[in-house]
Amino acid sequence: MRWSKFFIPTLKETPVGTEAVSHQLLLRAGLVQMLISGVYCYLPLGLKVLRQIEKIINEEMNAVGARELFLSCLQPMDLWKKTGRDETLKDVMIKFKDKKGRAMCLGPTHEEVITDLVKNHIQSYKQLPVVFYQIQTKFRDEMRPRFGIVRACEFIMKDAYSFDQDKEGLQKNYDLMYEAYKKIFTRCGLDVVIVGADSGAMGGDVSHEFMVPAEIGEDQVFCCSACGNALGINEADEKTVCPACKKEKFKKTPAIEIGHIFQLGTKYSKALDVSFVDDKGKKQTVIMGCYGIGVSRLIATIIEKNNDEAGIMWPKEVTPFDIEILPLQVSDKDVMGAAEKYYEIFMKNGIDVLMDDRDESPGRKFKDSDLIGIPIKIVIGKRTLAQNKVEIKNRRTGETVEVGLDAVQPKIQEMIG
Amino acid sequence: MRWSKFFIPTLKETPVGTEAVSHQLLLRAGLVQMLISGVYCYLPLGLKVLRQIEKIINEEMNAVGARELFLSCLQPMDLWKKTGRDETLKDVMIKFKDKKGRAMCLGPTHEEVITDLVKNHIQSYKQLPVVFYQIQTKFRDEMRPRFGIVRACEFIMKDAYSFDQDKEGLQKNYDLMYEAYKKIFTRCGLDVVIVGADSGAMGGDVSHEFMVPAEIGEDQVFCCSACGNALGINEADEKTVCPACKKEKFKKTPAIEIGHIFQLGTKYSKALDVSFVDDKGKKQTVIMGCYGIGVSRLIATIIEKNNDEAGIMWPKEVTPFDIEILPLQVSDKDVMGAAEKYYEIFMKNGIDVLMDDRDESPGRKFKDSDLIGIPIKIVIGKRTLAQNKVEIKNRRTGETVEVGLDAVQPKIQEMIG
Repeated sequence: MRWSKFFIPTLKETPVGTEAVSHQLLLRAGLVQMLISGVYCYLPLGLKVLRQIEKIINEEMNAVGARELFLSCLQPMDLWKKTGRDETLKDVMIKFKDKKGRAMCLGPTHEEVITDLVKNHIQSYKQLPVVFYQIQTKFRDEMRPRFGIVRACEFIMKDAYSFDQDKEGLQKNYDLMYEAYKKIFTRCGLDVVIVGADSGAMGGDVSHEFMVPAEIGEDQVFCCSACGNALGINEADEKTVCPACKKEKFKKTPAIEIGHIFQLGTKYSKALDVSFVDDKGKKQTVIMGCYGIGVSRLIATIIEKNNDEAGIMWPKEVTPFDIEILPLQVSDKDVMGAAEKYYEIFMKNGIDVLMDDRDESPGRKFKDSDLIGIPIKIVIGKRTLAQNKVEIKNRRTGETVEVGLDAVQPKIQEMIG
Repeated sequence: MRWSKFFIPTLKETPVGTEAVSHQLLLRAGLVQMLISGVYCYLPLGLKVLRQIEKIINEEMNAVGARELFLSCLQPMDLWKKTGRDETLKDVMIKFKDKKGRAMCLGPTHEEVITDLVKNHIQSYKQLPVVFYQIQTKFRDEMRPRFGIVRACEFIMKDAYSFDQDKEGLQKNYDLMYEAYKKIFTRCGLDVVIVGADSGAMGGDVSHEFMVPAEIGEDQVFCCSACGNALGINEADEKTVCPACKKEKFKKTPAIEIGHIFQLGTKYSKALDVSFVDDKGKKQTVIMGCYGIGVSRLIATIIEKNNDEAGIMWPKEVTPFDIEILPLQVSDKDVMGAAEKYYEIFMKNGIDVLMDDRDESPGRKFKDSDLIGIPIKIVIGKRTLAQNKVEIKNRRTGETVEVGLDAVQPKIQEMIG
């Protein structure tokens, strides 16, 4: 992709009224734009990052046998009354009456809808287990949206739901999801702290939160200052994870919750009457689990943990482009000729390239390049090219090497790995 | 994919209260499920079809230089007041007040939001033209939702917007979109009739509708019964398209509108004050076009035009799977062995296979197979396998051939093309 044909409206200045580094960089790197407080639009570069994350999620969800579907945003309030969550979630629900006078809401989550959907199709234990997931927009009427897409009124979530005939089945799916979540976050370049958690409005017994310690975190984890291990979020928790862990050494650390998994049990299936006939011919209630990832929040968290003063440093699997080519003098035939040559070679080899073909000063190009944070850049300038060389720079380490024109391709392949 | 691990809840009976064949088949083939009237959820098989269509749209939009982004569903009413469309569209808009007392709506379309977004980033003619598109959910408070996903309250659209410095530029982008639309619909297996149309609530001068003649169509086209050519939708239109076309031979035909493109001119850019400085240093108003495709409606239209009494017959590029393997006796080791072998071979070769591994009667399997409409099926039964043969059947033509076990792969490759 050529910069001039894409749309990356970078900003030189930090936008007013932004506290979080991730929020500032999301706006400055032209990834998102705010429509109103708590409501954001994804610009092309931001959408590319979103698609990368969706790809990781799709792969890991498919690997544990979860089937993707796509539920509606509009939901009838009747359904929510059956589980009593019209009350529990009333503070954040966006509600309205449709033309026919029906009480409706915009889904803040989808337990009710998926349970109602499954109810129509599950009769026998032979049809269980089944696990569904979707990547879908959710809505919450936040009084105080904060930190850009970290706490927004409209946001993207991955939500999965498991349906089992017994607790052993639930535990198995729960364990699979637990492991899948670890893989997803690792692939996103994040170190997560997993803590047993309060089930809150979801109900159920067992639940785990996937937290990333970060300054702007609105949740908190306790870390042992002796060994660095993270402990439960419950301050009273005296559980020690290594012999050196003593309560007096626990340190409270702010953290962002990016994932939460729940063993729901029968809360929803009982309320909505989802049953099946077991292998002994007896009617049983389906046992459920639910598994969420805040996808838009995940993007902010990745930036929060991967940046320096100059901008973003994308982890390998979520970067919107693999490499960036910077021809420093676009009016110079030799420079642009070399840039075009490498552009074509890499595109042909399935490497996604952004080429900054704008007629801008080298200084501006370097700044924008550091800001948007593509992991590897090839700098092509008159001076080095006259010596049959180009510069290859690693965004994260800052390491720069000059390589001969023929060595560019193997060097890049080596760096991409 | 194995049928037992997927989720395709086929229905034997036609659901009550469904008029349109596409609506019946969408439900019976387990593609979608109704939550309430006008609101549908996509089940895994339906979502796969949706993804196929999205892929075609992405490819053709990228080919004409349109950049994908993702705008919000939530929109402030302030914006709509500026263009006066808070009035024009008030009958279909879903509106509510948020916690802060702000008047909001759910986007029935996105002209206002995209124009406001571009306003912040376009200053000079050098930044033009620029074309954006998205595939996003839209909302309309329909009093009478009809024909399943043909006229729904929540539906998926592809909407694109072009921004140019002059009319010539707009005409160029308009022509590119016009051709891209023809390609998209052809790839979806549809014959479209393109007619000059009324711009309606969009404003602007020139517009074209992409119509598919179909019984359930709520619009209409005029066809010349002499030559079969389609004419304008305006009954007064006396334009003839071939010497034999005379007005008395015009025949009114119902049609479904699946696409609509508009030359908007400056209606939105004036109202929202989007200007740029031209090459002479003069301030000018940006000239816009907008281009819509009803994506969910497109799925219904494809089914409406590609079915027989037994079910759906998917066109090649939108089919959820390329081939289906039907082992007729799953408890027979030889039958399942052969089925598994072909399943693996085809998956390895990038051919997307559905294998009906359910322990169901051959009759049920045949019926479900015709219903869900995968273009090619490999039927593996004891009797033919004993002769070292399997049956390959073309869903559309009904043509069945028995081929030797070694001839399966080349035959399938030949059929897929």
